[in-house]
Amino acid sequence: MSAAAIQDLYPGDYAHCFGCGRLNEHGHRIKTHWIDGEGVARFTPQAHEVSLPGYVYGGLIASLVDCHAIATAAADAAERAGTPFVADALPRYVTGSLKVDFKKPTPIGVELELRARVREASERKALVEVTVRAGDVVTATGEVVAVRMPERMRRS
Amino acid sequence: MSAAAIQDLYPGDYAHCFGCGRLNEHGHRIKTHWIDGEGVARFTPQAHEVSLPGYVYGGLIASLVDCHAIATAAADAAERAGTPFVADALPRYVTGSLKVDFKKPTPIGVELELRARVREASERKALVEVTVRAGDVVTATGEVVAVRMPERMRRS
Repeated sequence: MSAAAIQDLYPGDYAHCFGCGRLNEHGHRIKTHWIDGEGVARFTPQAHEVSLPGYVYGGLIASLVDCHAIATAAADAAERAGTPFVADALPRYVTGSLKVDFKKPTPIGVELELRARVREASERKALVEVTVRAGDVVTATGEVVAVRMPERMRRS
Repeated sequence: MSAAAIQDLYPGDYAHCFGCGRLNEHGHRIKTHWIDGEGVARFTPQAHEVSLPGYVYGGLIASLVDCHAIATAAADAAERAGTPFVADALPRYVTGSLKVDFKKPTPIGVELELRARVREASERKALVEVTVRAGDVVTATGEVVAVRMPERMRRS
């Protein structure tokens, strides 16, 4: 298990993501931990983050899936390459595509658990599968194509 | 063209959506207008809604696609059924699945335009295709399966 959240190892220039950046004071600050080959995140939506009354907003679920999958791709690539899990060392990915299947309404007011695994990986991209659980119930599944960040988008 | 935004015709009990509810003071308040068989929405992300510096957060783009597609499904179904575009009259949909392909980075600081059309529809669901443009550039495309809201989720 990584002691720090994967997102907290991102370089400072890239820590402003609304979904998971530690330096974005308005954002969700999603935190992914790397445990036995799997990304694990826990997140409790706020009361106003609803779609219909009583249920979590789907756009938030998509956001959680997105940032959690990208961090999982980075952790998986680092583990395979033997890269140390320290600040600024992990490879960076961006989202190529994001798909979420909403299986059941996700209740508001409880902690959600996201788990993600890399199913396929190449030098250029990774396919990441995600589950979203409320208690024992899988309420949504996600599939993200994470693309290794093009060098032209890097500033550090 | 509908004078009011589609979302502003939703019943009060369903107007709390974080993405598009007129009664959610914390939310995005996405507004879809129905123009010549197409849903059209314009939205300018806030400065902190970034992924990497300079680019719009993908989770926000997914949120815009989601709410805009759902409103488009409702408007399309209403038009086909001859339902008047007035408060509380439109059929309601929920999101079955949401897919977004990020074609190019979406620049922050400009107004985005979303357009959506229903490609297939049955009594139970609609397949909605969405484009997201920054200026003349399509930066993302979306595909949403909108499912007619089950009666058990209705409260009014």
